Amino acid sequence: MKHCKFFLVAVATIAGLAALIAPVPGHANGQSAAPYVTEIPQGYRGWKWISSAHEAGKLNSLGAVLGNDIAFNAFRDGKLPYPDGTIIAALHYQNVPSDENNKIFGQVQSFVPGAPTNIQFMVKDSTKYAATGGWGFGHFQDGKPADAAFMKPCFPCHEKAKATDLVFTRYAP
Amino acid sequence: MKHCKFFLVAVATIAGLAALIAPVPGHANGQSAAPYVTEIPQGYRGWKWISSAHEAGKLNSLGAVLGNDIAFNAFRDGKLPYPDGTIIAALHYQNVPSDENNKIFGQVQSFVPGAPTNIQFMVKDSTKYAATGGWGFGHFQDGKPADAAFMKPCFPCHEKAKATDLVFTRYAP
Repeated sequence: MKHCKFFLVAVATIAGLAALIAPVPGHANGQSAAPYVTEIPQGYRGWKWISSAHEAGKLNSLGAVLGNDIAFNAFRDGKLPYPDGTIIAALHYQNVPSDENNKIFGQVQSFVPGAPTNIQFMVKDSTKYAATGGWGFGHFQDGKPADAAFMKPCFPCHEKAKATDLVFTRYAP
Repeated sequence: MKHCKFFLVAVATIAGLAALIAPVPGHANGQSAAPYVTEIPQGYRGWKWISSAHEAGKLNSLGAVLGNDIAFNAFRDGKLPYPDGTIIAALHYQNVPSDENNKIFGQVQSFVPGAPTNIQFMVKDSTKYAATGGWGFGHFQDGKPADAAFMKPCFPCHEKAKATDLVFTRYAP
């Protein structure tokens, strides 16, 4: 789950579009739920580490992918598809040089997470998110969810990772 | 805790040298314990994420710093000095481009952890490791601990981070 992918795939598939306009049937309180994740899953900052990620270039990002226990166990055991209840969190920060570390090294070589940029989630619920491969996608900036237009490219892009149940991240051993 | 720092500080302080040759008094089984960490702490791969780290240049490393619950809570709450029982783990990997991700991006911009290179630990035990600021340092490659000569520069280098109890890593919010 790389946040830049949101910007790269501009055309949603028919399935993706359907997911964006179709209300979820049978929602408990009668309201139609959004076809993507609109609330930040609780406790994600204390989840286990799946891998780190660095995006060079314009994004210049450094971050980590964390998972709840269901996610972590599935990643570690290579279990596919990911079971319902899996939640994957991608925490992104600016990739900034560490002045303190580089003073020790005597050169600019050490980079660490700077200001947070966004947080993304993939929530596996094969019923609720059936129209988007069983995954609900989420993107939050300053605690606020992105809108439907922004979320549109998530599913068609992640569909390219069909062999790994739409997940790009690999477990770091 | 950056692994390259081991290579940069070649001269141990008197305190560091003393720690390397002095047996720890009162060790339960009568053997003299090494003044650094020689066994990999159990379960570290499932610990919580403190931060990520990228070293450019020759090291070309990408990794993560994890902590046991005592470490994680202290980092999160900004508690200094770190309490006894704190264990910090630095997992290092080669920084490699992700062919799969870059195919999506249309350019080489996405970097992920490749082959593991080494794992390092800082174990806080103000009695056992009194001679090295209360911290036991550990470095493991292919599961095997480094020798005393390799470990010598750890303490004098980390002493430079006295304001943060010898810890260079900062908590990523």
